[in-house]
Amino acid sequence: MFKLTSVAFIIASICSISTAQASEPIEVIKPAVITEPEKVELGKMLFFEPRLSMSGFISCNSCHNLSLGGVDALPTSIGHEWQEGPINSPTVLNADYMLAQFWDGRAANLKEQAAGPIDNPKEMGYTHELAVGTIASMPGYVERFKAIYGSEEVNIDRITDAIAVFEKTLVTPNSPFDKYLEGDKKAITADAQAGYQLFIDKGCVACHNGPAVGGTMYMKMGLVKPFHTDNPAVGRKGVTGKEADKFVFKVPTLRNIELTYPYFHDGSVWTLEEAVNTMADIQLGQEMSEKETKQMVDFLKSLTGEQPQIMLPILPPSNENTPRPVPFK
Amino acid sequence: MFKLTSVAFIIASICSISTAQASEPIEVIKPAVITEPEKVELGKMLFFEPRLSMSGFISCNSCHNLSLGGVDALPTSIGHEWQEGPINSPTVLNADYMLAQFWDGRAANLKEQAAGPIDNPKEMGYTHELAVGTIASMPGYVERFKAIYGSEEVNIDRITDAIAVFEKTLVTPNSPFDKYLEGDKKAITADAQAGYQLFIDKGCVACHNGPAVGGTMYMKMGLVKPFHTDNPAVGRKGVTGKEADKFVFKVPTLRNIELTYPYFHDGSVWTLEEAVNTMADIQLGQEMSEKETKQMVDFLKSLTGEQPQIMLPILPPSNENTPRPVPFK
Repeated sequence: MFKLTSVAFIIASICSISTAQASEPIEVIKPAVITEPEKVELGKMLFFEPRLSMSGFISCNSCHNLSLGGVDALPTSIGHEWQEGPINSPTVLNADYMLAQFWDGRAANLKEQAAGPIDNPKEMGYTHELAVGTIASMPGYVERFKAIYGSEEVNIDRITDAIAVFEKTLVTPNSPFDKYLEGDKKAITADAQAGYQLFIDKGCVACHNGPAVGGTMYMKMGLVKPFHTDNPAVGRKGVTGKEADKFVFKVPTLRNIELTYPYFHDGSVWTLEEAVNTMADIQLGQEMSEKETKQMVDFLKSLTGEQPQIMLPILPPSNENTPRPVPFK
Repeated sequence: MFKLTSVAFIIASICSISTAQASEPIEVIKPAVITEPEKVELGKMLFFEPRLSMSGFISCNSCHNLSLGGVDALPTSIGHEWQEGPINSPTVLNADYMLAQFWDGRAANLKEQAAGPIDNPKEMGYTHELAVGTIASMPGYVERFKAIYGSEEVNIDRITDAIAVFEKTLVTPNSPFDKYLEGDKKAITADAQAGYQLFIDKGCVACHNGPAVGGTMYMKMGLVKPFHTDNPAVGRKGVTGKEADKFVFKVPTLRNIELTYPYFHDGSVWTLEEAVNTMADIQLGQEMSEKETKQMVDFLKSLTGEQPQIMLPILPPSNENTPRPVPFK
């Protein structure tokens, strides 16, 4: 009962916040405003740069594939030497709207996040020192660092800054639901509109709110009933050390959720129908009728926005000073 | 002596051919003429489609990375479950100019080639049946097949046809050397011009000729001296069964050679200087002075053309009918 009351309290809080700030608990997502185009371009190059990995094979885009909604569409990711990753790859789309990065929020922002996979032995398997040496070896990169940062120095701070500035441009505006919010009532179907009302009435908006329809808070996975998984991730507890934070994860964005299967931090659920029913059950203690589930899924699919149009970067060639990749032991 | 005489004969033949057909043994490469834009777009989607692999992780672009000159820039490729590939990944750029595909020419054309990696257990590790089922499960693909091929049927023939038609657009015109050939004598440096003259005089053009500066014939690797390698590839012998074809490989294109390191079918050589000296030694029985090597490398670098400008495709989402990827056993 305490837990359900908490949920009700959270819902009430959100509603009062949203009344004050906007008429809807979900806000329109805006197109990116690019103020530093050269840095965005450099960041894009680095995002697609497999030579930031030990093998020379894995780039940011490997697990945050911009052809696939910014994810790898796998339960958990494939890392260096085909190691099985510990958790489902979150989408990079609209990621700057998240209150922190990674499922457990252990990185404060995109810049801090970008440094993580490069030297994670299970992901890109490199070191920051070698990554910096790799980029610094190529005149085609160095001249860009000089033009952008005022000196030729390449360091991990600048590399991750550029990646983060690129990632901030990866927003997905003009979804049918945004058009609906902006007044075009025919932009989504009657079923999707009913699904949105259910999304509010059932209490989903308590956690999934704001422009990204998520990413504004942490919440326990399995709030009213336990979530059964083989995945050993403990969530925020790993960051705060507090037992109360066990299984507490960042609430994921629902923007482009049709594209970012499989779902949950363990990537165990492949369909939106199952994801909706599981969430209703274990987070809200509610059962969904078949019709309600369909309506909710129709609403969720209306959250797919315009995908970033990315011109594939052409990367400068390695030379005799570039550390050679080590794909195999 | 017999071998050197053969080389001289080949050179003489080429020179007479080139006199008859064109004033230069290397021809200008032309921009792609796109007559079927919708098929090119579909082929591009399939080229970037990781769901054509068992793991859902490896696409054509993984080993023929269009950010990296159409190669993976590794000695040999990384395949399904991080298996070590048998041979260096050839560039997909200008590949349609090759007389056949793969280092041993076992595929007659790009369409035939495209079918190979999909069901190769060491590459994408899938089956054609599952690949077809994957693509056929997605309405976003099926409607394109219908518009292009006149019916909704998805089959491996249509998949590889579309990929091949996309790949035919991947040409790299307007290199400095092409501009030089077209009359702009300042388009390449004096050293590069001297390098081109050496390239003719030393006999390199005997094998590396035509618009792609290669790809017009097969030749023994180690024509006058043996090539020492741990790589077990036997070349054309594997296709023809003839002992005389042992270590005979397709002559690779030198277009964009600055980008397509490491060199040779075993990917054992990382610098153009070493590649030039090795080729002169074991194919032509010649020693290069340091100055000559530098000039030759300057010429080779002038063969880097305009890289294809690729807008990253947005791929349709999987659904409940799509076979799920199997990244881990």
